Amino acid sequence: MKKFMDEDFLLSCDTAKLLYHNYAEKMPIIDYHCHIDAKEIAEDRRFDNITQVWLGADHYKWRLMRSNGVCEKYITGDASDREKFQKWAETLERAIGNPLYHWSHLELKRYFGYNGDLNSDTAEEVWNLCNEKLKNPSMSARNIMKMSGVILIGTTDDPADELAWHRKIEDDKSFDIKVLPMWRPDKALGIEKPDFGNYIHRLSNASQVDINSFSDWKKAMAIRLDYFQDRGCLGSDHGMKYVPFTRADEKKIDNIFTRAVNGDGISKEEEDMFKTEGLLFLAEEYAKRGWVMQLHFGVTRDNNTKMYRRIGADTGFDGIYNRLPVEKLSAFLDELNSRDSLPKTILYSLNPNDNAAIGVLMGCFQEFGVRGKIQQGSAWWFNDHINGMTEQMLSIANLGMLANFAGMLTDSRSFLSYTRHEYFRRILCNIIGTKVDNGEFPFDEKRLGQIVSDISFNNARNYFGFNID
Amino acid sequence: MKKFMDEDFLLSCDTAKLLYHNYAEKMPIIDYHCHIDAKEIAEDRRFDNITQVWLGADHYKWRLMRSNGVCEKYITGDASDREKFQKWAETLERAIGNPLYHWSHLELKRYFGYNGDLNSDTAEEVWNLCNEKLKNPSMSARNIMKMSGVILIGTTDDPADELAWHRKIEDDKSFDIKVLPMWRPDKALGIEKPDFGNYIHRLSNASQVDINSFSDWKKAMAIRLDYFQDRGCLGSDHGMKYVPFTRADEKKIDNIFTRAVNGDGISKEEEDMFKTEGLLFLAEEYAKRGWVMQLHFGVTRDNNTKMYRRIGADTGFDGIYNRLPVEKLSAFLDELNSRDSLPKTILYSLNPNDNAAIGVLMGCFQEFGVRGKIQQGSAWWFNDHINGMTEQMLSIANLGMLANFAGMLTDSRSFLSYTRHEYFRRILCNIIGTKVDNGEFPFDEKRLGQIVSDISFNNARNYFGFNID
Amino acid sequence: MKKFMDEDFLLSCDTAKLLYHNYAEKMPIIDYHCHIDAKEIAEDRRFDNITQVWLGADHYKWRLMRSNGVCEKYITGDASDREKFQKWAETLERAIGNPLYHWSHLELKRYFGYNGDLNSDTAEEVWNLCNEKLKNPSMSARNIMKMSGVILIGTTDDPADELAWHRKIEDDKSFDIKVLPMWRPDKALGIEKPDFGNYIHRLSNASQVDINSFSDWKKAMAIRLDYFQDRGCLGSDHGMKYVPFTRADEKKIDNIFTRAVNGDGISKEEEDMFKTEGLLFLAEEYAKRGWVMQLHFGVTRDNNTKMYRRIGADTGFDGIYNRLPVEKLSAFLDELNSRDSLPKTILYSLNPNDNAAIGVLMGCFQEFGVRGKIQQGSAWWFNDHINGMTEQMLSIANLGMLANFAGMLTDSRSFLSYTRHEYFRRILCNIIGTKVDNGEFPFDEKRLGQIVSDISFNNARNYFGFNID
Repeated sequence: MKKFMDEDFLLSCDTAKLLYHNYAEKMPIIDYHCHIDAKEIAEDRRFDNITQVWLGADHYKWRLMRSNGVCEKYITGDASDREKFQKWAETLERAIGNPLYHWSHLELKRYFGYNGDLNSDTAEEVWNLCNEKLKNPSMSARNIMKMSGVILIGTTDDPADELAWHRKIEDDKSFDIKVLPMWRPDKALGIEKPDFGNYIHRLSNASQVDINSFSDWKKAMAIRLDYFQDRGCLGSDHGMKYVPFTRADEKKIDNIFTRAVNGDGISKEEEDMFKTEGLLFLAEEYAKRGWVMQLHFGVTRDNNTKMYRRIGADTGFDGIYNRLPVEKLSAFLDELNSRDSLPKTILYSLNPNDNAAIGVLMGCFQEFGVRGKIQQGSAWWFNDHINGMTEQMLSIANLGMLANFAGMLTDSRSFLSYTRHEYFRRILCNIIGTKVDNGEFPFDEKRLGQIVSDISFNNARNYFGFNID
Repeated sequence: MKKFMDEDFLLSCDTAKLLYHNYAEKMPIIDYHCHIDAKEIAEDRRFDNITQVWLGADHYKWRLMRSNGVCEKYITGDASDREKFQKWAETLERAIGNPLYHWSHLELKRYFGYNGDLNSDTAEEVWNLCNEKLKNPSMSARNIMKMSGVILIGTTDDPADELAWHRKIEDDKSFDIKVLPMWRPDKALGIEKPDFGNYIHRLSNASQVDINSFSDWKKAMAIRLDYFQDRGCLGSDHGMKYVPFTRADEKKIDNIFTRAVNGDGISKEEEDMFKTEGLLFLAEEYAKRGWVMQLHFGVTRDNNTKMYRRIGADTGFDGIYNRLPVEKLSAFLDELNSRDSLPKTILYSLNPNDNAAIGVLMGCFQEFGVRGKIQQGSAWWFNDHINGMTEQMLSIANLGMLANFAGMLTDSRSFLSYTRHEYFRRILCNIIGTKVDNGEFPFDEKRLGQIVSDISFNNARNYFGFNID
Repeated sequence: MKKFMDEDFLLSCDTAKLLYHNYAEKMPIIDYHCHIDAKEIAEDRRFDNITQVWLGADHYKWRLMRSNGVCEKYITGDASDREKFQKWAETLERAIGNPLYHWSHLELKRYFGYNGDLNSDTAEEVWNLCNEKLKNPSMSARNIMKMSGVILIGTTDDPADELAWHRKIEDDKSFDIKVLPMWRPDKALGIEKPDFGNYIHRLSNASQVDINSFSDWKKAMAIRLDYFQDRGCLGSDHGMKYVPFTRADEKKIDNIFTRAVNGDGISKEEEDMFKTEGLLFLAEEYAKRGWVMQLHFGVTRDNNTKMYRRIGADTGFDGIYNRLPVEKLSAFLDELNSRDSLPKTILYSLNPNDNAAIGVLMGCFQEFGVRGKIQQGSAWWFNDHINGMTEQMLSIANLGMLANFAGMLTDSRSFLSYTRHEYFRRILCNIIGTKVDNGEFPFDEKRLGQIVSDISFNNARNYFGFNID
């Protein structure tokens, strides 16, 4: 029996251990897509207690607690932080096989030096230990990032955002971790939403463009793209159910746009038309600027209407869309490719069954002279567990070049999530080490170490073109 | 090399063995969904020979024999029982990797004390041994159940059924295994079937309601629900291609209903409308009564028309429907949830690719204060093999709380199928034990033993609310 | 650590090794579906260098090079063969986990006696070694086939083809490997293609039938079917996105046919109608003749329009279609079965998610008295890797009779691809051996050896009815 989560956690053979400890473990972290609030870095946020850090905004944990029958009072309700922590401990102690079990314990080990297991009996001890540690300035937002080996993060930002906090961080010479904005224009494309008109008003203010047509919209967006580029932005990110591809001419889009801004209803087909033309425009702009386009699809949002009305979006009620229209995705990429305007693109599907279709499709649009221009994103959200990550990496290896994979990101709101990179790297080294120890690839430490270092760090740096050493 | 199917069958590490032998193996059996005929229990059926038991009604075995090229004469035809048994042995000896190989040999071991392997050479020996044993009263239906550790089963019953055999069993104080009816209203919802009108007539008789409208149908169904409840029913079960969600008003449903009863054609959309409203009504009734709603979907029935005409339904010609409309399923659950009328629900899909979509969706509708109110059913029918069960349990663990899983059922027509619970428990213990021995979860025998006992037995008891000790 | 690709490559336990070395390895090869050009056999082609053999027509390798950022110049462009080889070596050395890594190294070992690993440093040595070997007459097309243990191959041939090269090979008594034509009527069914009219003209010439109607088309096809049958053909092969099933009467089909031949547009529905009726007709003809019908579906062709315009079809830009209409496939098989005209059929899907749906569906149409009449084809194209092949075989085993599986084929254009049979057999023996060593099946060498030999060779011979000893 291996010891519980010891230094060789998830490393099942000698080559895996060697690759992890001599290579992967030593690489710094680029977290190129996360939901950290830049304000918290700018202000170097401190935390009163472990419940604030762990349960304040983490809908992954909320969801698991609900599955364990915890009352909402102890999740997003008005119970005390200590009570909430107890309920979390009672959930976790039975969560065998769930990635949150490992994430939580890696965080306890790396940030709080706790090597036991959190359960209802140890909860009091862990509560006290963590809260004591959190009083220490070493546990401020910035110091946690430094301690984690982070050298760059990419946040998630609306085109209308002024990025004031990013500027503050950049201007602060005492802090040298790069905090780059990433362009997330979901609201600007969210023509089906009731508040689309209000959003366009906000965009108009930010861009100083009077927006009365699709053409105006494009002009405003281009201004904001330039603004983001000046702030160091190197990539975008989109969330959607599926990548649309329903073409329409400018006149039709103008008509749809005007009606939507005025609050008149538009059809699902019209929504797809606007989104298609909007996405094509944006993708061309990304290509021009050398940005990366990240497409996150396969999501159904807010399945539980009652809870949406009660506590809003991003609270643990999203699901998987399971019938990817792969021909639309292909047509979208093909159209851009035909215009010589296909940007570097990362495809993420929330449906793990899409691995093969995506892995093969992206091989149809690789650009000659660029390593892995089209990427399959790392296992995402619900799939971010040992099986999901293993299957995603094996799929990339089977269908293409694993060695060119841009690797891990946290997608997280929490400063303690950087241990997910450790989790990823252990799984990566185990996959590669196992292949070598099984006689499937030669043992050549230099080459293997290079591949592992590339996937852990170098590929992300080179792919986005981050200006770091 | 491990010995063939010895006491540590499927248990690959020490913790797995400990958990199985000290915990799982010792728990009694609740078989909460099966197709056992209550009459056979009431009459304490005896079997003339092993072919009667094994091949009399088991379309799993029929299908495998057909895949091996056995002529129908030796399957459902007029060959002698001894000949049929020989053909089965000839099929089985080559069926490496098929779950029927293991199921058959577990049955031979546990019920007949035969530890060899059945093949064309040993068929005569096995035939004689089994038939000799079957002469013994210890091999009556009831005694097999007792010997298996069964304490409760849930059968599959039509709303119009009088449940006379269930009553007989209940009244017989010499037999203390609970045989509870389970409500299966597929015919009452089967508005597209040519015999729907006849069925409604039957339902009318059973409920003493003159059924001329959807409203009457609901009234009749409610009367029968009460009747079932009085007989101890605690759950329902539905079989379908997909969970529909096409809303219509009462007037439209009345119109559809009347036309269907009169034998006039209805459209596919109208079928979905009736089924949607019918299911919503029933689900609310289940919620009121605290019943469990089981939804079995992803099935295409009777793919082989020629054989359907020759030997009817449930003879081995069903298939997998592979394009689950997950948004309909979501909308259905959401509608009930919005009405505060979502019952405890178990979701089973025949398509193993649906594991992730279901595992995530159910997490959106868990009720606070109830452990695992929405469940993913155990791997079902064609997926009920080592890989399928392992993947289903890992999926639950990755996406939610495996420890709250209500566990195994046989779905079987045979009294010898209880060894499938053993098969399941071995796989369960191997999954959990392997995680522990791999350092992924702490070795805490008490906690692990509790989880294993819960999934083997306690969860099903608590989930349905069975009144047993 | 196991040695890199030694004699026990992929064999992880004793029984696996025994089964491979004592049984699988010794069986000859039937490659019942490939894209070898019969002319190259007739002329006993020789190769100038390893780039010609490896990179001349292999779009699998092209695709991988593109994923590694190699410029098209070094793939299909005008770079020198030595340069192209170097780029391939630079790609391969990082391709950990990709099946091309293993295929390439198996070819280096078996045909060129090179046991090292090909990388950018060893490329020069390997280039020289291979090219030296290729000068030897033992490395002619025919001699490679003999050295590989091939005794029969099935090529891929258009109905209008005169099969002149096949006849030449047959007439050459110095060469005893059977090179049988296989009927591939994609162009004859390709009614949506702009050159359909021209093709029909070609078919008209070949059949000496004036083709003005669907009835004429059927007459012409029947003549060509007879012609192929006279040339020894025993099977057909179809490629498509999905198996259509949209019925129409003869008059409607005539109308569609005439418009298509005249170059008038037809709708997608009309395309499906023609293909449905055409396929049903052909399938009946296959059934009459005892031929095997191979259906390859789940493919989207030529996703990259820019590259299609530049270098044409089959150049590495195809993808996976991910929403198999399983009910159409079922209806197609059912219609033929109802007519008592369902031929032996092999179903291949490019979408690995279809394993379960296919594995179950085919069990609905097995014919009594024939072993495995409906087959699931071996993992195909992008899925032809360790995980894909393992999953496909486990799926067959779980859902039916692995022992009746007709086994491997290369689907290749290259004379060096026969080592893929070795790859397959190693994986097969590992699956079966592991089950035995894990106590899941009795160790009975004779029976196991028979099953392994059957899947490696005998089943394919018997299934197609090849007249070989």
